[in-house]
Amino acid sequence: MNNKFAKRTQNLKPSEVREILKVTERPEVISFAGGLPAPELFPIEEIKKACIEVLNDKGQSALQYSTTEGYVPLREAICGRMKNLGIEASIDNVIVTTGSQQALDLSGKLFIDEGDTIICESPTYLAAINAFKAYMPKFQEVAMDEEGMIMEELEKTLIDNPNAKFIYTIPDFQNPTGRTMSLSRRKKLVELANQYNIVIIEDNPYGEVRFAGEKLPPVKHFDTEGRVIYLSTFSKIFAPGLRLGWICADKEFIDKYVPFKQNIDLHSDIFAQMITAKYMELFDIEAHIEKIREVYRHRRELMIKCIKEEFPENIKYTLPDGGLFIWVQLPDNVDASELFVKALENNVVFVSGQSFFPNGNYKNAFRLNYSNMPDERIVEGIKRLAEVIKEYKN
Amino acid sequence: MNNKFAKRTQNLKPSEVREILKVTERPEVISFAGGLPAPELFPIEEIKKACIEVLNDKGQSALQYSTTEGYVPLREAICGRMKNLGIEASIDNVIVTTGSQQALDLSGKLFIDEGDTIICESPTYLAAINAFKAYMPKFQEVAMDEEGMIMEELEKTLIDNPNAKFIYTIPDFQNPTGRTMSLSRRKKLVELANQYNIVIIEDNPYGEVRFAGEKLPPVKHFDTEGRVIYLSTFSKIFAPGLRLGWICADKEFIDKYVPFKQNIDLHSDIFAQMITAKYMELFDIEAHIEKIREVYRHRRELMIKCIKEEFPENIKYTLPDGGLFIWVQLPDNVDASELFVKALENNVVFVSGQSFFPNGNYKNAFRLNYSNMPDERIVEGIKRLAEVIKEYKN
Repeated sequence: MNNKFAKRTQNLKPSEVREILKVTERPEVISFAGGLPAPELFPIEEIKKACIEVLNDKGQSALQYSTTEGYVPLREAICGRMKNLGIEASIDNVIVTTGSQQALDLSGKLFIDEGDTIICESPTYLAAINAFKAYMPKFQEVAMDEEGMIMEELEKTLIDNPNAKFIYTIPDFQNPTGRTMSLSRRKKLVELANQYNIVIIEDNPYGEVRFAGEKLPPVKHFDTEGRVIYLSTFSKIFAPGLRLGWICADKEFIDKYVPFKQNIDLHSDIFAQMITAKYMELFDIEAHIEKIREVYRHRRELMIKCIKEEFPENIKYTLPDGGLFIWVQLPDNVDASELFVKALENNVVFVSGQSFFPNGNYKNAFRLNYSNMPDERIVEGIKRLAEVIKEYKN
Repeated sequence: MNNKFAKRTQNLKPSEVREILKVTERPEVISFAGGLPAPELFPIEEIKKACIEVLNDKGQSALQYSTTEGYVPLREAICGRMKNLGIEASIDNVIVTTGSQQALDLSGKLFIDEGDTIICESPTYLAAINAFKAYMPKFQEVAMDEEGMIMEELEKTLIDNPNAKFIYTIPDFQNPTGRTMSLSRRKKLVELANQYNIVIIEDNPYGEVRFAGEKLPPVKHFDTEGRVIYLSTFSKIFAPGLRLGWICADKEFIDKYVPFKQNIDLHSDIFAQMITAKYMELFDIEAHIEKIREVYRHRRELMIKCIKEEFPENIKYTLPDGGLFIWVQLPDNVDASELFVKALENNVVFVSGQSFFPNGNYKNAFRLNYSNMPDERIVEGIKRLAEVIKEYKN
């Protein structure tokens, strides 16, 4: 019955992320693969209090159908967080999504017709690639350096692709590279988008997890024409299991996102939304995020120290100021997916770089996650990985 | 920037369901519009106990990222429920979805290319129409009578549309008509699907809420070739706010649903999944469903009694054996959407029939919900509605 499926199923394959989650279930494997937060930091007792209070005070509403846009007190709290980042927004500019993954799918649905061009960093977040791929676009990748997307390259791409639908960017501690777009490039990005009349989708799941360097305003802060659609999530600052993210955008966009959101799940879990809002009302989420930053700073420093000590000198790697990931660049002749097989045999895993290039044309890099592993496993895992790299070279 | 949006946005409009939810927030309005369960039946104290136990025993897993397919103990419990309905399934045949609305979106994504034909009952569930519409199919509607979809009509449609992608059906207490497909037609439906080699999507959100008549096996019970994809939900038997539904299908289909599900929200709220599984472990959900049936039986009988007493004699209506809805057929010259405006002025609302016809060619009917309103509001609401109908005729 294969002829019955839609065309978009043809380039569908179980993504690496899912396969990764399966591998990490084996206790002997040290996984630097997923983008999982440190579970020991989840505020379980506080969430329990929030649950009880929500069920005691508003149990019926917490369990009933609700509105597509999301729970008003949560959207108000989101507006407050946005304001702290330098973005003025009212609740009419915010919808709650089922994780920011849903915001990616909705963005594909809203903008992409088959064959349309979309522009992204090279490399970029693999689950964004997969979400967009379902709508069958062409990807134009823009090269990056240590300051993020290279604006001269972006302008060339915009000139060559005048009908491109949007620019997708992760300016803060990018997934997979850990790189941060510089202040001047943020401003330039908005200028170019204005000049070439294109939408920017700014995906910022990690921005609040900055543990070094100077805080930078989001790209949307510089948006004067309402063309930046800002996506974020509670997954990295609270609890990913609850699947709560948000879209903050001009009302013109929100009015189109909402009916699509309604078509795909009516609304996000209202109990989870009320728990999250109640948690922020009862407890100090800023203090909680500060704890996350401290732990991730420590783990990032430990992992970099181990890499410096253990990896061969010709291996390059990024030095993130926040977020969850380090990007490792191997010599040209190394294929990271071959290395992955060897690494798995040695009970240590990463995500090979190729998955992060929508056009698949890059092999000698991989992504390391440092947020999810305790010290001794970071030390041991990098040692194992170094062995595999050294063996591969011979 | 309108030219930037995808084509599929062109027939996008805020659906009536969402507008309905907004109207029902006004306390003076008696709403027979939404498909909301009776919130006073939600087992709030039991859910509180389940929350506490989940957070005490498995707090970290409940808040962390999880697998796309869903929480294994919940999938096992779903298999048990399926078995009670006469469907043999293992957890490899089940994925948990973010409400069964997500299962509808995923089904559109999996099967529909622009211009493809899909077959459905006439009328059919409006949120399914909207979910599918995003993938731009043609709808072929098949007429119904009191026994559900008319099989002779279906066969004609299958002959005329040999490349149709699937038959979408709600055999039990259909939304919007409240009608139930007879046993012989269930068997015939599977026979025809086998003969014409087409997939059946059986949507069964209300099947367990039968309060009269004889229990019938689902269409999938008669499926010998793995071509029936069965959708259901916890929304009507537990709590819609948690957004948990499921797909039960042949592994060939599940293997394609899973990566799409991953692309649209990674996984459904794992805390909600664990709460639901824990609730079923600690408490007797069958006893809870029996309570729901009793209340809905009473409300349905009361509403029918009021309709009999108040409505003009030339108004026809269905007599559902379960579920949440009564379908009211007006004389040919009455436009239900005009009636809606008058009804709203009189602070009573329904959903006009036109929304349930994908090709929009039917005006003189509307849907009434009886599950969500206490007795005195049913009595008062039907009285108000009868006044509006009588006035309209003059």
